[in-house]
Amino acid sequence: MNIYAERIGMLRDLMAQNGWNAVLISGSDPHASEYVADRWRQVAWLSGFTGEAGDMVVTQDHAGLWTDSRFFIQAGVQLDGSGVELHKTRVPGAVRIPEWLSGKVSNVAVDGLCQTVDSVRELENAGLDVVDVPDMLSRIWPDRPRIPVTPVITLSEETVGRSRYDKLTDLRKFLLLNDCDCMLIPALDQIAWLLNVRGEDIDYNPYVISYLFVSQAEAIWFVKKDEEPSDPDTEDSFQELGSDEVTVASYSDVRAFFGEIQAGECQKIFLDLSTMNYSMYKDILDAAGEDNIMTGKSPVTLWKAVRNQVEIDGMHEACLEDGAAMEKFLFWLDREVGSGRPVTEWEASEKLSSLRAEIPGYRGDSFANISAYGANAALPHYSTPAEGSAVIEPHGLYLVDSGGQYLFGTTDITRTVPMGECSYLEKEDYTLVLRGMIDLAMAIFPKGTAGCQLDVLARNPLWQNRRNFGHGTGHGVGFYLGVHEGPQDIRQNFNSQPLLPGMVTSDEPGMYREGQHGVRHENLLLCKSLETNDAGEWLCFETLTLCHIETSAIIRDLMTAEEIEWLNTYNRNVCAGLTPYLDDETAAWLRSRTLPL
Amino acid sequence: MNIYAERIGMLRDLMAQNGWNAVLISGSDPHASEYVADRWRQVAWLSGFTGEAGDMVVTQDHAGLWTDSRFFIQAGVQLDGSGVELHKTRVPGAVRIPEWLSGKVSNVAVDGLCQTVDSVRELENAGLDVVDVPDMLSRIWPDRPRIPVTPVITLSEETVGRSRYDKLTDLRKFLLLNDCDCMLIPALDQIAWLLNVRGEDIDYNPYVISYLFVSQAEAIWFVKKDEEPSDPDTEDSFQELGSDEVTVASYSDVRAFFGEIQAGECQKIFLDLSTMNYSMYKDILDAAGEDNIMTGKSPVTLWKAVRNQVEIDGMHEACLEDGAAMEKFLFWLDREVGSGRPVTEWEASEKLSSLRAEIPGYRGDSFANISAYGANAALPHYSTPAEGSAVIEPHGLYLVDSGGQYLFGTTDITRTVPMGECSYLEKEDYTLVLRGMIDLAMAIFPKGTAGCQLDVLARNPLWQNRRNFGHGTGHGVGFYLGVHEGPQDIRQNFNSQPLLPGMVTSDEPGMYREGQHGVRHENLLLCKSLETNDAGEWLCFETLTLCHIETSAIIRDLMTAEEIEWLNTYNRNVCAGLTPYLDDETAAWLRSRTLPL
Repeated sequence: MNIYAERIGMLRDLMAQNGWNAVLISGSDPHASEYVADRWRQVAWLSGFTGEAGDMVVTQDHAGLWTDSRFFIQAGVQLDGSGVELHKTRVPGAVRIPEWLSGKVSNVAVDGLCQTVDSVRELENAGLDVVDVPDMLSRIWPDRPRIPVTPVITLSEETVGRSRYDKLTDLRKFLLLNDCDCMLIPALDQIAWLLNVRGEDIDYNPYVISYLFVSQAEAIWFVKKDEEPSDPDTEDSFQELGSDEVTVASYSDVRAFFGEIQAGECQKIFLDLSTMNYSMYKDILDAAGEDNIMTGKSPVTLWKAVRNQVEIDGMHEACLEDGAAMEKFLFWLDREVGSGRPVTEWEASEKLSSLRAEIPGYRGDSFANISAYGANAALPHYSTPAEGSAVIEPHGLYLVDSGGQYLFGTTDITRTVPMGECSYLEKEDYTLVLRGMIDLAMAIFPKGTAGCQLDVLARNPLWQNRRNFGHGTGHGVGFYLGVHEGPQDIRQNFNSQPLLPGMVTSDEPGMYREGQHGVRHENLLLCKSLETNDAGEWLCFETLTLCHIETSAIIRDLMTAEEIEWLNTYNRNVCAGLTPYLDDETAAWLRSRTLPL
Repeated sequence: MNIYAERIGMLRDLMAQNGWNAVLISGSDPHASEYVADRWRQVAWLSGFTGEAGDMVVTQDHAGLWTDSRFFIQAGVQLDGSGVELHKTRVPGAVRIPEWLSGKVSNVAVDGLCQTVDSVRELENAGLDVVDVPDMLSRIWPDRPRIPVTPVITLSEETVGRSRYDKLTDLRKFLLLNDCDCMLIPALDQIAWLLNVRGEDIDYNPYVISYLFVSQAEAIWFVKKDEEPSDPDTEDSFQELGSDEVTVASYSDVRAFFGEIQAGECQKIFLDLSTMNYSMYKDILDAAGEDNIMTGKSPVTLWKAVRNQVEIDGMHEACLEDGAAMEKFLFWLDREVGSGRPVTEWEASEKLSSLRAEIPGYRGDSFANISAYGANAALPHYSTPAEGSAVIEPHGLYLVDSGGQYLFGTTDITRTVPMGECSYLEKEDYTLVLRGMIDLAMAIFPKGTAGCQLDVLARNPLWQNRRNFGHGTGHGVGFYLGVHEGPQDIRQNFNSQPLLPGMVTSDEPGMYREGQHGVRHENLLLCKSLETNDAGEWLCFETLTLCHIETSAIIRDLMTAEEIEWLNTYNRNVCAGLTPYLDDETAAWLRSRTLPL
């Protein structure tokens, strides 16, 4: 019997014992994280599906995985033999989980720690009784991983531009303005930013799994794990926090703590339900009462997204160092593949990571490299296999989407590299996608403009040729934080958050042809103030990413004069900016690759 | 004493007698119309302000008019001496009426016939007791105009492409699908479209003031006014409707009717609260009970906006005839001003209307012509005065925004005409605005795209030069109906309604410099299906408007090659298309004006 089918059988026994008609297993963790630690890879443990987005529902006669088009192929392979059926989301006629359950069952058990309040409300609105069973799977998962414990480091004011004391003061002012006494923050990126701390609890995401409670008088960081070994860095960090009046407490104590908050000055608590887990919310509701809870958006998300000058300088530095590593990689790739040696996607990926690792301040990659040749690049979220990955041949297009975490910033860059002879269609797609990336980078817009109001600029060259891509054009990028962050983005979906000076957002249109090839060009854009005139304040983008764009696959006649000028200027700046960081041979190669188009 | 101050005094006496702390006077009518008949020009009667958008609030110690930037200057002039203060809306820090009243007073009296349900709910949510006094102002307005009565005409299926019987059947199917038995429609444009009837009850808007009740068994048109004289056209129309099983009833009987609807098969009623007046809603609520009311968007708005082939052919015909009138006008203007005769804005406006009036099927203008020279054109909603309007001089820019109502369609067109020598800034603005209009007209986009996702295409050439305009880029245009219609539009505001094949929308970017000049170019665009490929269905625009665009004020170097090609093709098509409708002299002139750039 398939191991996953066996585990689902154990879950069904548990359901039968407890009278649960259905169980919903979430792909998230108690902190509403996009990426989770192994302990919360519950969907993978139960079904074998390892994609980053997916929720499961199990009833006595059905087990289903809900995921989106990025993962249809992967799910098809990984679910084979498990008895789990794939339910496609975000496709026409898709049936979401609450609808699917509605009418079929009367109750559904969830691990309320891993469900947001909003997601439970959806289930309730669909007429379902929700049974909250915190840590449900621990009952049938004997060797379930513990909550990870990695060293906690602190970042100085000199590195991040604002002290934790000042950030906490801002938050306290916000609470005062909103007539609230305190706030509980479960979101790991917000905590890391507020306290100027980082860890390695989640792959690629430099977070420390914890909750933060802030009142006018106190800041309590619920972070210590019971099994925590004594780590000198962590001890130092805790001491530093203590001297900034941040009390360090045990992670597991956070739920009990809310029995006490009514005492003293903490009458009214502010909560952001989009990141608050249901179990914790119920505890707070019981302790504080509905009238003492104010819900709204956490202001930290926006504060975090607007970079101060120190952070901007750091991002520049990160892009410079990262760009030099990229150029070293591209030179190596050009030479190796050119020499006729069979280089695999995986080898290339490993080489790139090793070049990044040489950079002082490197803390790891910011996500798993996408190293994809030919038809593999047609999968925007291709996962390069360690074993048996494709050989990069000396023709066609190779796509590499990667990034680094540095003490002074985070990067995310995609280059599509013509490896030799390319077909007309490959060149056309390459050129049109590039035009879109450039057109967005050149945008000038009035303050107040949101990303969805600019998105068409990156799509228009493709649309004019009846081509399109199925993902967003841009996401926020953190400062030595998550490579995906809000609140801003650049995509078709309506998001009213204006782009503001200091925000860093990716610019990554693409074009994908199943079974043929894929193209994506990605730079990071810093939003800046340009000028204020009669019509108000005007904003523009500065391209942060420094890595040349290959001109050999460009069909020049498809480009406008302005776009060609932008590209030539960009490549010239890349060459000038990176040359001091490269050895002579690499620099000479880069010079030859950046001749004007 | 100023007559308006006197009237406000009378209103205050009425308030005192009845214990009303405040009165809110709406700028709309019982049908939530944008333009209203004289009977409902209550704000104008009470304050002297004649702008098309404005609401008033009167308390014992304050009288205020709330209106937006289009009318600030006009309000400043017209309110002088009335004691009414201007409250600016849609500006930073603007205080809306419910907020303004909140805390100041405990109750507010409204004419519930002229307030939508939504607007009353806003008052209630602000903590105010709302007193509904239908036809309140009639108590102090002795010679208040009656509800207008104009001839009712019917349009045949051959003219509009779908019979009223079929349209009513569609509506009945919609009601069945939504488990509703009946619907009351107060919106005049929806009624005119559903019943294929037109009238002249409101200037520029070919509507018949009425309510329509539709159930599976019945269609009752509450339209007869008590004072109605016997008009043979109207009698014929009523007879035709009768033979299509539409019962004609008295307008004033509609409110009493809802005492009866519970009887028989009409248990559940569908209402669109965005157009439902509060007084009527209360009647229905009393009669039917809350459980028997389903609220939602009326489907008629969308059905109406998607043109069938007959309507599309009609719109083409309207644009052809209208374009010929425009060219005759432009030729006349060129000759008259060129001859040195002082032509005023008003004379030009009258001339244009008289040329439109010569077209068979002409039923009036679709709005008051905006005929504006020089600095006057910097006011996007300039109202050309009959007396003392400016003389159009043989230099600089003249702007004319106008349209016609025809039995076979509605037009809306703006041309900015260089009258001779223009400054560099005038030319630059002229060129950049034109580029925006062309870029939007050339758009190709996937089905599902909304107007707000395309809006930037019309703004980008201006934005690149740190210029902008403060109005929407495009609005829906009716088929011998309102010149402004929804549900689609093209503007910055998020409106999720996708542009669909068959929709007609204006494309009218502009640029305005106070005290100097104004530029606006406006064509009508028909959305069409272009092609379906792997990426889905692709849509594009066909420009319906036929009237040449002057090239003399264009700075050629600012245009892209594609834009120049679009313009030359357009002008060539205009010349070829209109020549058969013009006398030799006008045709020769048009030929000379449409030489390629």
